[in-house]
Order: sequence, then C-alpha cells, then structure tokens
Amino acid sequence: MILALAGGVGGAKLADGLYRALGPDTLAVVVNTADDFDLYGLRISPDADTVLYTLAGIANPATGWGLAGDTFETLAMLRRYGEDTWFQVGDHDFATHLLRTQRLREGWSMTRVLAAFTGALGVRARLLPMADEPVATMVATPDGELAFQDYFVRRRHSDTVRGVRFAGIEAARIPDAVRQAVRDASAIIFCPSNPIVSIGPILAVPGMRDLLRSTSAPKVAVSPIVGGRALKGPADTMLRDLGHEASPFAVVSLYHDLLTGIVIDHADAEQQARIALLGVRVLVTDTVMTSLADRIRLASEVAQFAAELRGDEGNV
Amino acid sequence: MILALAGGVGGAKLADGLYRALGPDTLAVVVNTADDFDLYGLRISPDADTVLYTLAGIANPATGWGLAGDTFETLAMLRRYGEDTWFQVGDHDFATHLLRTQRLREGWSMTRVLAAFTGALGVRARLLPMADEPVATMVATPDGELAFQDYFVRRRHSDTVRGVRFAGIEAARIPDAVRQAVRDASAIIFCPSNPIVSIGPILAVPGMRDLLRSTSAPKVAVSPIVGGRALKGPADTMLRDLGHEASPFAVVSLYHDLLTGIVIDHADAEQQARIALLGVRVLVTDTVMTSLADRIRLASEVAQFAAELRGDEGNV
Repeated sequence: MILALAGGVGGAKLADGLYRALGPDTLAVVVNTADDFDLYGLRISPDADTVLYTLAGIANPATGWGLAGDTFETLAMLRRYGEDTWFQVGDHDFATHLLRTQRLREGWSMTRVLAAFTGALGVRARLLPMADEPVATMVATPDGELAFQDYFVRRRHSDTVRGVRFAGIEAARIPDAVRQAVRDASAIIFCPSNPIVSIGPILAVPGMRDLLRSTSAPKVAVSPIVGGRALKGPADTMLRDLGHEASPFAVVSLYHDLLTGIVIDHADAEQQARIALLGVRVLVTDTVMTSLADRIRLASEVAQFAAELRGDEGNV
Repeated sequence: MILALAGGVGGAKLADGLYRALGPDTLAVVVNTADDFDLYGLRISPDADTVLYTLAGIANPATGWGLAGDTFETLAMLRRYGEDTWFQVGDHDFATHLLRTQRLREGWSMTRVLAAFTGALGVRARLLPMADEPVATMVATPDGELAFQDYFVRRRHSDTVRGVRFAGIEAARIPDAVRQAVRDASAIIFCPSNPIVSIGPILAVPGMRDLLRSTSAPKVAVSPIVGGRALKGPADTMLRDLGHEASPFAVVSLYHDLLTGIVIDHADAEQQARIALLGVRVLVTDTVMTSLADRIRLASEVAQFAAELRGDEGNV
C-alpha cells in the first residue's frame, strides 16, 4: 500500500499515475481539505473532487478541475437571478456538491462521504480527507486577510502573500482511516502540490508530522517547482513572498523533518548536491506530466525510488 | 388589483392569463406552499415555481412544470452516485432551489425569497406564499400516510385517498403581504387548481377564510373540473375518494362560505341552476386553456364577470 499526500491538479495527476501504475486497492490518497468552502449554499471541496474525478477518469483534461464535458446551465440560471458566479461549478459537479452537503448535514463525516463517492464512481483507491473537521486556509495580503478561494480564484492569486494560516486547524483531528493508512503504507509520497497551501495544511493537522515520522516507510516528495516555477498555480510566487526560494531545495526545507527522498526535474539537477547535504536522497528525472503516459511513468519511477530507499534504509 | 389563489399548472395558466390581460403591477398571486418539500438537500416549492416560471414566460409548455429547454445533467450525475431521482429537477430549476434553500437558511422568509425571484426574472406581479411557515400536505391511503410528492409524483397519484391533512398548518400565519393584497383586491379569483390539495391548504391557513370573507370584493372560482374530469392531476378521483362529486357543484360546495361566483365550462352548463340555488352566480364559457390566447381570453372573461358581480353587489 502506498500513501500519497495531495492537493489539487498536480497532486491528482501523480495520484492518478500511482493508481494506474500500482493497480487497484494499493493506493490511499490523503487530500487537503483546507480549500473547502461554502458557496451557493453548498459545501465545495475542490482538492478532494479534483482527485476524485481524476482517479475516476472523468476529470476535465483541459482545466484539471471539474468534469470532462460538463455543462454550466445551473450557473447560467444563477446569473439570471443576479448571483455573482465567480466560482465555476458545472452541472455534474453540482451533483457532487449537493450530495456532499446533504450527507454532511445528515451527520456523515467527510471520510464517509469520500468513501461513498469513490465507491459510486468505481475508484479502487482510498480517498481520505486530512481531517473531518472544517479547516479554512486564510491568506494574509496587503488588502487584508482573504479566504483561500477569494485569493486563489476570485482574485486569481495576484495578491502578495504576507502569511497563511489554517483557521480551525487546532480542532482538527487525524481521522482513524488516515492513521491506519499511514501504518499500512510501505511508502509515503508527497505529491507535486503547493507546499504551503496544499501539503501545508495536511502536515499542520495536530499530530500529523509525528504520525508520519512514526513510520519507517520512506517518504518521498515530488517537487512542484521546476526551473524556479510552479507548473500550475501560485506556489512559486507564494514561496518567494514568504521568504523562501522557489526551488526544490526550498520544498525539501519545508519537509526537512520528514523526507527520505525527493524527485526533482532535470531542470533543477544542479540542486542535487545542496539537497543531499540535508540528508535527503535525490532522484533526477522528467517531472512534468503532460500525458497520461507521463503520469504513469513518473509514478512508476517514484514508486521504484521509494522501494530503493526502503531497501537502503539501514544505510541512510 | 386582482388577487388570485393558485396551485400548480392550472392555477399558473389562469394567473398567466390574468397577468397578460390586466397588465403589469395589477396582479397578486397567493400560492399553495403545502406541496413544498426537501429533496437532494434542497427546499423545493413546486407550485410557487410553476407560477413563477409561467409568469416569467420561461415555463416548459409541454409539461407545465419546470423550465423550457432545461437540461438534466445534475440529475444524471446524481443517478451515477446511486441516487433515486424520482423527482425531475432540471439544471436551471436547480438554480432556483439552490438559491431558495440558501436564502431560507440565511433567515429570509419565503415571502422575501419569492419577491426576489419575481424581481430577478422581471415578473411584475406579486407572488406570495400562503404562509412563511412550512406546511406539508399528507395524504392518507390504504398503504398508510404519504407525503404529498410521494403520493403525487413517485406513486403517480394512483392510491385511493382516504383523507388529507396539512401538517404544521396550525402554526402557519397569514403573511402581512397576503393580508395587504386581500385588502387591496377588487376581486379574488380562485384559480382552476385542485380544491383539496392546492386551494385547500391556502384556505386552511388559520384566519384565511375569515380574512377573505372580510372583504367585499367578489370572489370568483374557475372550476378545475370539466365534464366530470380534472383537466390535469387527480382532483377528480380525489374528490370522489373523499365522498364528493367530481363536479363544479362540488367545488362550489367546498368554497360555499366564500364564493360570489363560479366560472364553469359549457360541458357542465346543466349544473348552473343547481349551483345558483347555493346563491353563487355562474358564468358558462370555454374554460379549457390550451393556448396562450385561451389563457388571456378566459382571464378577461373571469375579470369581467368579477367586475359585473362587483357592480351587482347591492343586488346579491
């Protein structure tokens, strides 16, 4: 069993590669839920849904989020009612949000909701929320603190980021299913997701870093920064705004107490020695995933690298 | 100002005729809200929405309910999640339910929600709920008591009706806007809606019959029964199941304490004398509304009949 920690699009791609490379029932994915928010009266979980749709093979390949071929009729009618529809939700996507909202109101946990969704869509990987309690990423900017989706979608992540906090994180608890998945994992993969606002909240759940350190399974990150740039989203500018480099080295620094290895792109090969000084093993390969074949190839290399690190364990 | 009491499709048609015959800002419609129910986590108000869409000119002419040209993508995805989608909701229709549910959760009254909806859709008639409190029509059948939409939609009104009650009606209050509309009305029209489960709940709101009796405005019903049959829905079998005739005479009997006049179809002309014995004036005309022209013509005749009854008032 391999456990992946993932945010949205980049994380979903590698998780998908792992899912297809490893075969069914051997992957668990812990997703960031600190992006979750309420809109149109519904509970929306962007990262969980992106991973869900991607693993189900129904994600929109053009956008990374949402469903392939989805329509936007409900949103069009909401606009007719005068609503500001700054956050795109397709008609199929609305079904997910409707059902999640209904189940949560009925008292279901997010863990149970996601298990039902993967089951219904035929996904034979486990999709686990980082916590069942609501957590909300808040972004401090020169214009004041913004809710994450305000910063990310409505204002197109154009604000300077002065700080990030995860509201509610102190009350979040590691779900039992996540504890079990960590215990069962032969490797833990940090997907190429934003280290601050995607992997960051997962690691900020009280006890999560200790839990991850408690297992001897190798922990391998795939850098979301390639050649100084985030492949998608604001990870690069966010890192710089917060005083970090936008580099695989900076990513390693953020996870320094956890990582056994990191997978970086050929574009960053020169960072290898510097990272090695931190005691983290490095695999240099092509990390940009354009096609499905890319996902599977990278995932296979990452899994192989983790297996080697497991074998090396006594020597580290 | 004319005030119409309406249920779903038949009521919406006549209300639409009145709206187009009388011109803007001269019509108020009080709708039955005892059909309202929760589904897919949303609050659905079938009769209010049918009247809303009809007056906005966006109703589906083929079904009478829902919106013209609506798609059913959200419902299709809900089915993929294993949901039993026995109640049809189109994607545009979902926007209405989403927004209503959100507003009600925010503390808005149904009166305010419907005012916002008519405003947004450019409807210059007032659409008023019979009450802001939730009321639920329950239908007693040989298989036990059924929620109204279970009886009406899921089981296609095929059960024998042993009784009807309006759960929560004792706590319902006449909204101030309805009181005002009754005071302002120069005529009150009982639309050709089911007298038991559409007009019935409106009249069952505590104080409603007294309020209607308190005004000297003529009260004219349009019979929903023509030639012994309901033009739409189960009004005929329901009347018979409950020991009434399925006839205009039976309709008059149910509203006997209120009506000044009734409009019946040529098919029922022979009932004229019998109804007159109850002290209710009768207009015989074509009451079947197939086209928009039919709606406007019938509405004009009804309004004219009411105006004559108003002029006659001293002679009644």
